Amino acid sequence: MSKLWQKKNSVINKLVESYTVAEDYKLDKEICLYDMEASWAHAQGLHKIGLLTSKELATLKKGLAALKADWLAGKIEITVADEDCHTMIENYLVKKIGAVGKKIHSGRSRNDQVLVALRLYLKDSLFKVRGLSLQVAESLLKKANQYKNVPISGYSHYQIAMISSVSHYMGAYLESVLDDIDFLDKVISSLDKNPLGSAAGFGVNVALDRAFTADKLNFSAIQVNSLYCQNSKGKMESMYLEALSQLMLTAGRVANDFIIFTMKELNFFQVDESLTTGSSIMPQKKNLDTMEILRANVKVVISNGLLIKNLAVGVLSGYNRDTQLLKKPIFESTKITLDSLQILDLLINNFVPNEEEIKSKIGVEILAADVALNLVKTKGLAFRDAYREAMANLPKDKVDYVKEIKKKISLGSAGNLGLEIYNKRIKQLKVRA
Amino acid sequence: MSKLWQKKNSVINKLVESYTVAEDYKLDKEICLYDMEASWAHAQGLHKIGLLTSKELATLKKGLAALKADWLAGKIEITVADEDCHTMIENYLVKKIGAVGKKIHSGRSRNDQVLVALRLYLKDSLFKVRGLSLQVAESLLKKANQYKNVPISGYSHYQIAMISSVSHYMGAYLESVLDDIDFLDKVISSLDKNPLGSAAGFGVNVALDRAFTADKLNFSAIQVNSLYCQNSKGKMESMYLEALSQLMLTAGRVANDFIIFTMKELNFFQVDESLTTGSSIMPQKKNLDTMEILRANVKVVISNGLLIKNLAVGVLSGYNRDTQLLKKPIFESTKITLDSLQILDLLINNFVPNEEEIKSKIGVEILAADVALNLVKTKGLAFRDAYREAMANLPKDKVDYVKEIKKKISLGSAGNLGLEIYNKRIKQLKVRA
Amino acid sequence: MSKLWQKKNSVINKLVESYTVAEDYKLDKEICLYDMEASWAHAQGLHKIGLLTSKELATLKKGLAALKADWLAGKIEITVADEDCHTMIENYLVKKIGAVGKKIHSGRSRNDQVLVALRLYLKDSLFKVRGLSLQVAESLLKKANQYKNVPISGYSHYQIAMISSVSHYMGAYLESVLDDIDFLDKVISSLDKNPLGSAAGFGVNVALDRAFTADKLNFSAIQVNSLYCQNSKGKMESMYLEALSQLMLTAGRVANDFIIFTMKELNFFQVDESLTTGSSIMPQKKNLDTMEILRANVKVVISNGLLIKNLAVGVLSGYNRDTQLLKKPIFESTKITLDSLQILDLLINNFVPNEEEIKSKIGVEILAADVALNLVKTKGLAFRDAYREAMANLPKDKVDYVKEIKKKISLGSAGNLGLEIYNKRIKQLKVRA
Amino acid sequence: MSKLWQKKNSVINKLVESYTVAEDYKLDKEICLYDMEASWAHAQGLHKIGLLTSKELATLKKGLAALKADWLAGKIEITVADEDCHTMIENYLVKKIGAVGKKIHSGRSRNDQVLVALRLYLKDSLFKVRGLSLQVAESLLKKANQYKNVPISGYSHYQIAMISSVSHYMGAYLESVLDDIDFLDKVISSLDKNPLGSAAGFGVNVALDRAFTADKLNFSAIQVNSLYCQNSKGKMESMYLEALSQLMLTAGRVANDFIIFTMKELNFFQVDESLTTGSSIMPQKKNLDTMEILRANVKVVISNGLLIKNLAVGVLSGYNRDTQLLKKPIFESTKITLDSLQILDLLINNFVPNEEEIKSKIGVEILAADVALNLVKTKGLAFRDAYREAMANLPKDKVDYVKEIKKKISLGSAGNLGLEIYNKRIKQLKVRA
Repeated sequence: MSKLWQKKNSVINKLVESYTVAEDYKLDKEICLYDMEASWAHAQGLHKIGLLTSKELATLKKGLAALKADWLAGKIEITVADEDCHTMIENYLVKKIGAVGKKIHSGRSRNDQVLVALRLYLKDSLFKVRGLSLQVAESLLKKANQYKNVPISGYSHYQIAMISSVSHYMGAYLESVLDDIDFLDKVISSLDKNPLGSAAGFGVNVALDRAFTADKLNFSAIQVNSLYCQNSKGKMESMYLEALSQLMLTAGRVANDFIIFTMKELNFFQVDESLTTGSSIMPQKKNLDTMEILRANVKVVISNGLLIKNLAVGVLSGYNRDTQLLKKPIFESTKITLDSLQILDLLINNFVPNEEEIKSKIGVEILAADVALNLVKTKGLAFRDAYREAMANLPKDKVDYVKEIKKKISLGSAGNLGLEIYNKRIKQLKVRA
Repeated sequence: MSKLWQKKNSVINKLVESYTVAEDYKLDKEICLYDMEASWAHAQGLHKIGLLTSKELATLKKGLAALKADWLAGKIEITVADEDCHTMIENYLVKKIGAVGKKIHSGRSRNDQVLVALRLYLKDSLFKVRGLSLQVAESLLKKANQYKNVPISGYSHYQIAMISSVSHYMGAYLESVLDDIDFLDKVISSLDKNPLGSAAGFGVNVALDRAFTADKLNFSAIQVNSLYCQNSKGKMESMYLEALSQLMLTAGRVANDFIIFTMKELNFFQVDESLTTGSSIMPQKKNLDTMEILRANVKVVISNGLLIKNLAVGVLSGYNRDTQLLKKPIFESTKITLDSLQILDLLINNFVPNEEEIKSKIGVEILAADVALNLVKTKGLAFRDAYREAMANLPKDKVDYVKEIKKKISLGSAGNLGLEIYNKRIKQLKVRA
Repeated sequence: MSKLWQKKNSVINKLVESYTVAEDYKLDKEICLYDMEASWAHAQGLHKIGLLTSKELATLKKGLAALKADWLAGKIEITVADEDCHTMIENYLVKKIGAVGKKIHSGRSRNDQVLVALRLYLKDSLFKVRGLSLQVAESLLKKANQYKNVPISGYSHYQIAMISSVSHYMGAYLESVLDDIDFLDKVISSLDKNPLGSAAGFGVNVALDRAFTADKLNFSAIQVNSLYCQNSKGKMESMYLEALSQLMLTAGRVANDFIIFTMKELNFFQVDESLTTGSSIMPQKKNLDTMEILRANVKVVISNGLLIKNLAVGVLSGYNRDTQLLKKPIFESTKITLDSLQILDLLINNFVPNEEEIKSKIGVEILAADVALNLVKTKGLAFRDAYREAMANLPKDKVDYVKEIKKKISLGSAGNLGLEIYNKRIKQLKVRA
Repeated sequence: MSKLWQKKNSVINKLVESYTVAEDYKLDKEICLYDMEASWAHAQGLHKIGLLTSKELATLKKGLAALKADWLAGKIEITVADEDCHTMIENYLVKKIGAVGKKIHSGRSRNDQVLVALRLYLKDSLFKVRGLSLQVAESLLKKANQYKNVPISGYSHYQIAMISSVSHYMGAYLESVLDDIDFLDKVISSLDKNPLGSAAGFGVNVALDRAFTADKLNFSAIQVNSLYCQNSKGKMESMYLEALSQLMLTAGRVANDFIIFTMKELNFFQVDESLTTGSSIMPQKKNLDTMEILRANVKVVISNGLLIKNLAVGVLSGYNRDTQLLKKPIFESTKITLDSLQILDLLINNFVPNEEEIKSKIGVEILAADVALNLVKTKGLAFRDAYREAMANLPKDKVDYVKEIKKKISLGSAGNLGLEIYNKRIKQLKVRA
């Protein structure tokens, strides 16, 4: 037993270190710049309330500038020994500018340092996602305008149901993306609160000017209660993931539709071969691997969202190390979403409908429900009776499906897509950004 | 083989019916009234565009009024044979008012009937959740005002960390609830779009006045693209679940804190025995079962949220029967959230802190970080050096923890809780409702 | 405050009761008979160690027999006031046979009563699932023998890849089901341990003969450590759910294949119309709703499995009320799996391949990889070079795909299915049951 | 439009490549050696059926040996351009030994190459997990033998319930680990089937000797149906994850117990400081970060298990690229489990109970249920009446809890732990390995 409480066994230490730090030191490169930004805001805040002299502030400014330059130049790395970017920054500053580098730690804790850096990351990343989403929206609008007269089967239960148009599908995807951006904007506003100044969850006995630092960091509000700042970990990130998930659900739907619509038996769309990859045993075969990966990535983001909620559950108020594991699913989901939106945009811009193939697959039964509704209007039949009559009297000649599309005049149908509504929404979203 | 394609085997039919209908006919009692409301709006819409005469409309009005009265009086049930509430309504009307009862089916499909009824349910339920959440917020504010001078340990890593107050905890819970309500309001606005008029996902060949019915149903916008109306199934519900989950995460945190804080070894709070239940083998023992159930219910809502996302994944555009299974997790989660908020409110209003017990558990080390920060201010030491000095010079006498609380002057700390901010937010939220 | 600690408010009580009991009193009808069985074993055990006289045992036997008869006759219900079946049973016995009805509670707790009743339920349910799974396996074997010479496209990436046969698909489903049964048997053996005698998690101060009761209840082992009996809650159920999930994954795959293979554009299979349902707006249209519900039910079982794991996480050793919520997902998943297997069996027995349609959709390119491999053998070319040559020299005439199937001679391919292996496995599984 | 179908845009290509390959090329280092092993078995199989000459086989043997040596020496890397380890291996061989390096591709596809390499990885990893689990079991047995006479509170609902011992807890953890190993062994046997020879899911037109290669690779059976080999992706991995999850649930329970038992207010255990880490704002404070990370890692493994199931859902039979995403959650979960078991073992070997602290926290009420049961035995009272009497007559003097422990004589209780059963099981498990 004597050895046990004496000095640390270095092998044990290594295992413990690698277990607790894990990949954190690598992951932190994502938030390193945000910590520098927040550190500078905190320094200015300390100066404002007299905890740093103007000289000290100037020294810190230089130190932080050097740090940022070195970081951007790739001259610094976060090592396992650093544990995370916050320690790396502290060590750098102390080495570069001496004792003042330590004083920046006054009135804050690593806990609120992590919180604020991650919050800035979340906001910034949502803006990046937003930009790409708007780009996808514009691509979809272009295509929706282009294929108004290209008929295609509308499905329910995977069965041909009613006449639709390629533009109708594009419009469906487009409105989905626009709603996703609206939701994303709401999440941005929910996240837009400054946790800096909450320290280790219990505040400090100096009168930090939290409004001042919130303003410096471009937050529109303060997250007030210091304990809540800690407790909101997992909750904020869950909303963030919901915003990403909504977009991924939209993107995954497009992917899934295209995988089915490009089955040889349907062959509705021609997709640029840059988006496909070959098979090792059948090299000529072209598969829509990009869309399969996208479809699978929706599931990765969903399970990351679950993990984030689970990490927020079942722990006592205040900081717990468990929340360190929030970072990986956040960063991974962000990258996946950004990449998937680009791939989606590529797809939308690089397909053409095979009009003849599409038309050859539509059967005349597709018109039955429409004919029936017409009988309701003209003969006053009840719908189900009208449907039976319609089925018995379907057109025998070659059908002009474009004409049929145009008959669909209810708002949001293939004959009345309301694309101008989306055009307007896109414009407004661009202004709002 | 001859038997196979002939007539249906009734045993088979029964199995298929019970498998596909499942509990749907029971679940639909939740949305039955909403379908009546939407049916009336649709009837008025058909009249407006000339598909129903004024006389027919009047007949329908009477039929729907009779239906509603009978439903509320418990005279009608949805049976397995009905399959769902929509068929029950149609059957009732046809029986009651004859052929006109069929004509209301013109220009719509069971698909948009389901969509609009569920959308109305979602909106309405969120308003109910909102009301209870505001009640919880007010209870928390009352308690936060009451226990400002009751010290309690602040924890990190489940270890006593820094001095806090009971009010500080109440404030943390309160700000969490208020943020949850803000988010819930955002979700309401995202759901506030009318899918009625999208028919089976591909619209109709009559010019439905969708703005008119949206207005009648008190929606602030139209969900335009008819295919998107179908495709948004699962997405809308996912946002809804996120709103509920945020509240459940907050409630679950309170539950978990109280379970730990009422362990005999801490014994911080006395909870009214109405909230506890006994043990069969130790009848005198009082357990906080309500909070254990609440804690577990958070997980139920989380897994329901996952199910809803999963149901939205991997299916072709347009209606698919899979989405029928969205209802159960939605209704279950709604009930859980409404009940949990009431239980939470009960807890908040029926506990008292055991001040002496709490104080006896706080050790003087709890002050070290604060003393250290003071040394930073007064002696200009770097924080870590100051901390070491502080630990060596902790007060020997009985500490006045109330005084210590008051020293925590940064906004959001125990000594500067900013409760007036919450008071103002509650007032604004009440107006907004 | 005065009212607070006085007497219980009955409104509060009702809310608390309905929140904590929830649907438990209804759910418990699933395990009621198992509790009677275990109670009888426990009574015999008490008698064996002298805690019940022979007369008392005889009285209990009568009481339990009456209880079982009344229960099976539907004369008893579990009410909210009972809370659960265990209290109902105790109350019944006390009323029926007086004080002896209480003595059966000696040496056990409601905690191990719940544990053992649920364990018996789990084992028994798995045997039911096993029986239906074997039935599905036999149906698949029949079909696999039937359609050996019916060609069909083999897919990868949803694209036609290589020649296959309907039997090849049936064999794939069949081997999957057989592996699922093997796994299920392993789970049965893992669950086959008696927790009765663990009391409230800490045993009792009498020398219960746990081997004796294990034997009476047909368990092959004792779950020894009493605290572990409690702690294993969630873990045992997680294995159970994994066994169900494996079968649901198999069933869901068949469902998904059939949904796609019966799309009008493929039209590979004719499914008996008893398995399809109509559309309200397109009444003639027949949709494979059963398979859509099945596909969705896979997701229900998956999310239930997640819930069960989550309920096992983050709670202190010993009984916690959280685990009450295990029952609902268990019972729901069991019912879904039993029903889905029956539906699956119905599908397998009620479809016929549309041979001509299938053949008309296969393109001659499907042979390229096979021709290439032949060139490797005959000309010694490297595969990729051979493939290029094959593509340039595909047969021009009408291809005899049956002949092509027969060329696939590697074990497990369409030309060498190894069905006798499955036949043998089925026979062995039947013996093992 | 002219540019679209012409030549590939290299920027597009890069995006597509990085999206589809993602981190696959890095992840594949985990299975590279297994692919070499399987390649060698395949080569021998080709030789056996005359598709490779003895000379070619000898050349391949040399090539593979060189490859393995270079790989182990760190001289080769898998690059993005390689896509994965299988292409890297093919390229290496072609470069090293010329055309014969291509011929090894005969009769197999990258699809079954991936399958068999991953299957070998899964089996091998489970054996590693098994070894560490047995080590943990032995550590727990040692501790269980050591602390039989150290009393500790037994809890239910987080409230002190009945007397227990530290050994009782150790025994509970131990039996849990042993059951986990039993289950793991069952999963190993379920995974122990060779998919090599299934090619791209549809076999080949040469008579591969699949039994021969299965034997060479030490598989105890063949996974027969080639399409099922593909379809089982996700299913096999789901069982694998369930095996890991069971162990993580056990480990997480220990972690959670220790986090609560080492709260200052309980202070039951002293944990070696090598397992704790400090706080930045309270450097003296020692937190059990390792156990917090472990507790959180349980959730990571659970969400990975969910992802794996989700990836197996909703895709057509045959290979789909979606399954590429199985690898990351598999490898991550494996590493987490292996590391967590080591950390757990470290904890078990490096704590001591604080006997005096523990005893001081136990109240005499803890004996009530036991006293009551004694009254049942001696006075023939019904349990609940006996309990009331017991509470009124609890011992007034200092209680000898060790004596109380010894009274718990039912098998699996603190006074009759049955440790010899575990000792025997461990020995058997060691033999079985």
